Amino acid sequence: MSHKVIESPCGPIVHGLEDVLVKTTEISDIDGERGVLWYRGYRIEDIAERATYEEVVYLLLYGRLPTRAELRQLADEMAEERELPGEAVELIRIMSRAHPMFVLPAVVNVLGSLDPEANRTDEQSDIRKAIRIASKLPTAIAYHLRMSRGLDIVRPRKDLGHSANLVYMMLGREPAPLETRGMDLYLVLHADHEIPASTFTGLVAASTLTDMYSAIAAALAALKGPLHGGANEAALRQHREIGSPERVPQYVEDALRTGRRIMGVGHRVYKAYDPRAKIYKAFTRQYVEKYGDPEGIYGVAEALERYILGHEYYASRRLYPNIDFWSGIFWHYLGIPEQYFTPIFAASRVVGWAAHIVEYRRNNRIFRPRACYVGPHDLKYVPIEERG
Amino acid sequence: MSHKVIESPCGPIVHGLEDVLVKTTEISDIDGERGVLWYRGYRIEDIAERATYEEVVYLLLYGRLPTRAELRQLADEMAEERELPGEAVELIRIMSRAHPMFVLPAVVNVLGSLDPEANRTDEQSDIRKAIRIASKLPTAIAYHLRMSRGLDIVRPRKDLGHSANLVYMMLGREPAPLETRGMDLYLVLHADHEIPASTFTGLVAASTLTDMYSAIAAALAALKGPLHGGANEAALRQHREIGSPERVPQYVEDALRTGRRIMGVGHRVYKAYDPRAKIYKAFTRQYVEKYGDPEGIYGVAEALERYILGHEYYASRRLYPNIDFWSGIFWHYLGIPEQYFTPIFAASRVVGWAAHIVEYRRNNRIFRPRACYVGPHDLKYVPIEERG
Repeated sequence: MSHKVIESPCGPIVHGLEDVLVKTTEISDIDGERGVLWYRGYRIEDIAERATYEEVVYLLLYGRLPTRAELRQLADEMAEERELPGEAVELIRIMSRAHPMFVLPAVVNVLGSLDPEANRTDEQSDIRKAIRIASKLPTAIAYHLRMSRGLDIVRPRKDLGHSANLVYMMLGREPAPLETRGMDLYLVLHADHEIPASTFTGLVAASTLTDMYSAIAAALAALKGPLHGGANEAALRQHREIGSPERVPQYVEDALRTGRRIMGVGHRVYKAYDPRAKIYKAFTRQYVEKYGDPEGIYGVAEALERYILGHEYYASRRLYPNIDFWSGIFWHYLGIPEQYFTPIFAASRVVGWAAHIVEYRRNNRIFRPRACYVGPHDLKYVPIEERG
Repeated sequence: MSHKVIESPCGPIVHGLEDVLVKTTEISDIDGERGVLWYRGYRIEDIAERATYEEVVYLLLYGRLPTRAELRQLADEMAEERELPGEAVELIRIMSRAHPMFVLPAVVNVLGSLDPEANRTDEQSDIRKAIRIASKLPTAIAYHLRMSRGLDIVRPRKDLGHSANLVYMMLGREPAPLETRGMDLYLVLHADHEIPASTFTGLVAASTLTDMYSAIAAALAALKGPLHGGANEAALRQHREIGSPERVPQYVEDALRTGRRIMGVGHRVYKAYDPRAKIYKAFTRQYVEKYGDPEGIYGVAEALERYILGHEYYASRRLYPNIDFWSGIFWHYLGIPEQYFTPIFAASRVVGWAAHIVEYRRNNRIFRPRACYVGPHDLKYVPIEERG
């Protein structure tokens, strides 16, 4: 791979720390050349076919698949933890017109301030807090979605699974099985992905032994960035802008001519087809086969993918559709406004962030890199009275 | 320097990225061997003697010292920006019993959600937002301090300088010149320090092109960590626990025997006397000469420093008192509760964070390091029904 290296008087700087190792991990692995993703050694295809999000939470945080009893216990615990304290609800109300990615970290800070064990940093406590945050974030997202539209909030139901309950709280109706499946599959596929910028932000913060809530809030701040969490929104907008399959060739050629990127295509790590994209595309096809493709967005995406896969420019650069290319279509048809795509991503990834934090803290060392100073030294300080 | 290196199947990993370069900078430089610190090429001693915090804000954000007119304009702008929107005051009220380091990032998220230009990432906009945050954080800190004690808030006054106003809002009375000086000197000395973990957290978040508010909130989350922002609280507690100069030798020898660290001694970068510590020690001596040392804390700190400087263990390891060793004494005598030490640190450093973010974004690249996967591959997934 070609890293961008900045030459400096102190030596070469690997820009963005691309491919620089910062830790060992047993959580997830990506083979970008072949397009393979593993969680704790299990192939994502096997997990996506069989596991619920709760099972993935267990797998990532505890390092192995749960027994039936362990899974039931975790699912019960998560259901019990769904309610938000009044202070958090009040905050969401105050911020009901804000972008939800400003609201979620603030909610996490409020939750941290109310948790008596917030400042403990031992592993079992960190795992308990991760489970609490993962259980409460969906409620915060759904409450904000409804308040922002002037609707009554729909309180969580303990008798529903994690994903069914999230759809239920957002839409205010019990979801159909395929709707629950679309949410659950999305959450399963996004739960971890090694060390992208959000996970790294959380790790650097956590290396100061700050509390789990604060570290997760920091990771959320990074996920908000348009270069990171915002890609699925952008891809959906693009598909809708293209409008119909016939307009795909013109759109792509225009993009190439003007140097514009096709959104949802290419990935810093995957140089093959993103395995998550394959899985979510298959789900989305199944969904539109049952519920239709009224705005033709799936049709556009399929045509766009076909055109790109057959195009020399993209093929020679190994640029393939990634998960963000596919994931917005289902959300759109489900009626989820675009600004909640990144929050739902966060509701999933929070468990990966926490797992990496727990793992790093077993052998913690504060992150303290250096900058190469390239400015002057010992300038003469002229007192303000003697300046112009 | 001896880096801790973790051997991995993917190659060596520099633990905590110690001394790994992540950017070039023209903001600040540290000569750890000789104990020298520069802001924009000016020695910290020259700046500390002559400049106010507002002048340092200008220097760090704009890259050069202001003219008199420019400084007046910035000071006016900061004074105008001190008031908090009602939503932020409401949030502080909701969180009035929380640790202030949970409150400040949430306040910053609220401020971001209300700023119409929050999501712009061009340099001038980022600088404007940095100035707004730097102007409002002291108000948030003072409001929280007073609300947490059931006191009426004291609204900011435009006719006071940045530091005098902060002391005024916290204590509810106009500060004496030496009190204002103690605050201002502290803010000047803490405004930047190259790339510690909080700055790096902000940089990693900002590299996703997230907004300035979110990046600052992320940095705050890292500063909350006891390995980072909490050191001056810990040093003060230690000085008070020692209680009197005669008990210093016993305390140090006990610490050495039990492997306990002396708080406020040693620094990851400085292998000489921390130049900021020298300056703040001199101020603190001046302060206690005028106002007394009623609990004898300065006396203990002086005796502890003398003992350590003359002790072979510390001398051979080049462990010297750092700024945190000295800065808590003045705060304590001023009547600032310990939990507000880190928030005041944040109120200063916010400008360094912002300056590094602005600098990095001129040649932005998202941080995306790697982890070395050391777990198994292709484990057989046993469906939950077939498990125990």
